[in-house]
Amino acid sequence: MTRVYLKNNIKKRIEKGHPWVYENEVERIEGEYAAGDMVEVYNFKGKFVGKGYINPKSLILIRLMTRNKFEEIDEEFFRRRITRAWEYRKKVVDTTSCRVVYGEADEIPGLIVDKFNDYLSIQTLTYGIEQYKDIIVNILDEVIRPAGIYERNDSTVRELEGLVQKKGFLKGIFEPYTIIQENGVKMYVDIENGQKTGYFLDQRENRLAIQDIVKDSTVLDCFCHTGSFALHAAYFGAKHVTAVDISEHAIETAKKNVVLNHMEGKIDFVCANAFDLLREYQMEGRQFDVVILDPPAFTKSAKKIESAYKGYKEINLRGLKLVKPGGFLVTASCSHYMYPQLFREMLQEAAFDAKKTIREVEFRTQAKDHPYLWNYEESLYLKFFILNVW
Amino acid sequence: MTRVYLKNNIKKRIEKGHPWVYENEVERIEGEYAAGDMVEVYNFKGKFVGKGYINPKSLILIRLMTRNKFEEIDEEFFRRRITRAWEYRKKVVDTTSCRVVYGEADEIPGLIVDKFNDYLSIQTLTYGIEQYKDIIVNILDEVIRPAGIYERNDSTVRELEGLVQKKGFLKGIFEPYTIIQENGVKMYVDIENGQKTGYFLDQRENRLAIQDIVKDSTVLDCFCHTGSFALHAAYFGAKHVTAVDISEHAIETAKKNVVLNHMEGKIDFVCANAFDLLREYQMEGRQFDVVILDPPAFTKSAKKIESAYKGYKEINLRGLKLVKPGGFLVTASCSHYMYPQLFREMLQEAAFDAKKTIREVEFRTQAKDHPYLWNYEESLYLKFFILNVW
Repeated sequence: MTRVYLKNNIKKRIEKGHPWVYENEVERIEGEYAAGDMVEVYNFKGKFVGKGYINPKSLILIRLMTRNKFEEIDEEFFRRRITRAWEYRKKVVDTTSCRVVYGEADEIPGLIVDKFNDYLSIQTLTYGIEQYKDIIVNILDEVIRPAGIYERNDSTVRELEGLVQKKGFLKGIFEPYTIIQENGVKMYVDIENGQKTGYFLDQRENRLAIQDIVKDSTVLDCFCHTGSFALHAAYFGAKHVTAVDISEHAIETAKKNVVLNHMEGKIDFVCANAFDLLREYQMEGRQFDVVILDPPAFTKSAKKIESAYKGYKEINLRGLKLVKPGGFLVTASCSHYMYPQLFREMLQEAAFDAKKTIREVEFRTQAKDHPYLWNYEESLYLKFFILNVW
Repeated sequence: MTRVYLKNNIKKRIEKGHPWVYENEVERIEGEYAAGDMVEVYNFKGKFVGKGYINPKSLILIRLMTRNKFEEIDEEFFRRRITRAWEYRKKVVDTTSCRVVYGEADEIPGLIVDKFNDYLSIQTLTYGIEQYKDIIVNILDEVIRPAGIYERNDSTVRELEGLVQKKGFLKGIFEPYTIIQENGVKMYVDIENGQKTGYFLDQRENRLAIQDIVKDSTVLDCFCHTGSFALHAAYFGAKHVTAVDISEHAIETAKKNVVLNHMEGKIDFVCANAFDLLREYQMEGRQFDVVILDPPAFTKSAKKIESAYKGYKEINLRGLKLVKPGGFLVTASCSHYMYPQLFREMLQEAAFDAKKTIREVEFRTQAKDHPYLWNYEESLYLKFFILNVW
């Protein structure tokens, strides 16, 4: 097998467990290779580090699959890994609808599998994992026995890998949407056209965490998307919910979810830019018991972190000003580069500028079916605070 | 009122919201004062910072009660603060048994109030707050209407303040123990002689968090004290629980709790030093699905952090080695100085040394009735991880 030797002066990141080898970390390659081939990685001294697939088109040259020199990357390998991932979910979450495989954090780099009731929605995001798609689909079918499997490979990430975007049926032909239950709330999931695999499952436990604070409260939900936090607030007994999103299409879907949950009249939707609307509400002196901020990622790269920081700070400062004394700010960030300590510092600055005192009621991250592999810090991306404000 | 002026070159900590003024941060004091007196604090430029009580015997010279120059520290003040604290608990927790007042984090420095069913157990830990004890007891009686109030002022901290240690009845005469319910588990609370106010309520939500992972599992609970984690594990369906503590008295109490919950035969108790026992189990090749480590604080001062770090690392390294592949380590630290990032780094080192891969299932802190006031970092002390290990 082709051997890749790492440079001498690089950090011990890879040897300590990180699964990515960047192009500029490689000293030399002995042997032939093509995109998708399995290669062995050694450190400068010739010590075996791991085995993984290579892609010369990607900045991430190699993604390691195993640290065991004698472990073959074959059908049995994927059966072991997928079974382990599934057993973990069965232990920690309700598996009716959940993330089944979370890529590198399940030691299957490039593979995402979400389960929505009886359907699986999958993404093979790298050239290397794409080569094993048929094997993976067969094993998912064998281990989980879904009614159907859909491919949501319409991600721009695939083009960076030299793959085309595509979506379609991998097993069975079925109506690609379903209604899932999340903490008792029903949500339409559009497997064909919904965000990423169809729906964000990563906030499930966080949506449950607002239960006590929204009861009998007035709630403002900014960046409501298809309404999941707003619907949870109404379901948990909020007095009134105002839900804001800039996308008319998102609000249309949210309204369908309202009907689905028989919650007509409990949520007012506003189609607006949240930044502007929050300023307007402040001018009008409007206040809420609970303000929820769940914006899309303001940055997906380390380079844009400074402007993202400003964006987060502005939205949180405005949000804090709208919270009644003794009320709560519920605030999230899904940008990996806005790492927990930075998000916390931003909030502390925003509170100082807004002349508000804050107490942490709860800090949470992504749901348990999206475990954070410590050796792979990219697997932590969601931060979620419930803050008591006065 | 006597005026205290802060030095020029100190950090903005106090002005940014921290309630403590250390002796070495004071430039000069204008006016007379005695221990327990209320004084006004100004910055170097003469800008009002806050008002609080002074104690020349304490290294923490002043503890600020308010940032509002016109807010009087009188009966009404305590009624407002205690009512606010109580309203917050009613919002976020079951108030049958809970922390009602958490000192500085509730802006009542020095005062701790815990509720165990119909009884309150209180601590007035500073000279300043001691002066208001009668007022506080009356207001607690008025707002919460407990059957009785007990004083657990048998803390060495009080001696540093120039106060004597004492305990006894403040309202009513009653049998000072009760049986509380925690997530469905019954626990004896000895209000007169139990730890601190009688029982640690701060892990309540963390004990609930082990529910899914302990089901049908073998569990090792180290530093089990009066058995709360072990009892929760058995209650949540563990196959078998081994519980370890060095104190025979703690194990005797734990055994009474076993009988109280009709869990005879489900928990084996071992009276031993956890460090030694973990080594012994490792030699014997014993493994568990879940290992729980909830040690007492290894340090209560910043100076001893290095040796505390070593202690935490050793116990966690040993614990990790006893977890079956795919199992879980549940690990806590209640030392404030072992701050979250340091605790995380220690665990990462321990995992590397133990040749284990870890994934974070959940990170938690103290229960919601012990809120973390960000301006007062001392109010965060409990860290709690559930880690998936292989």
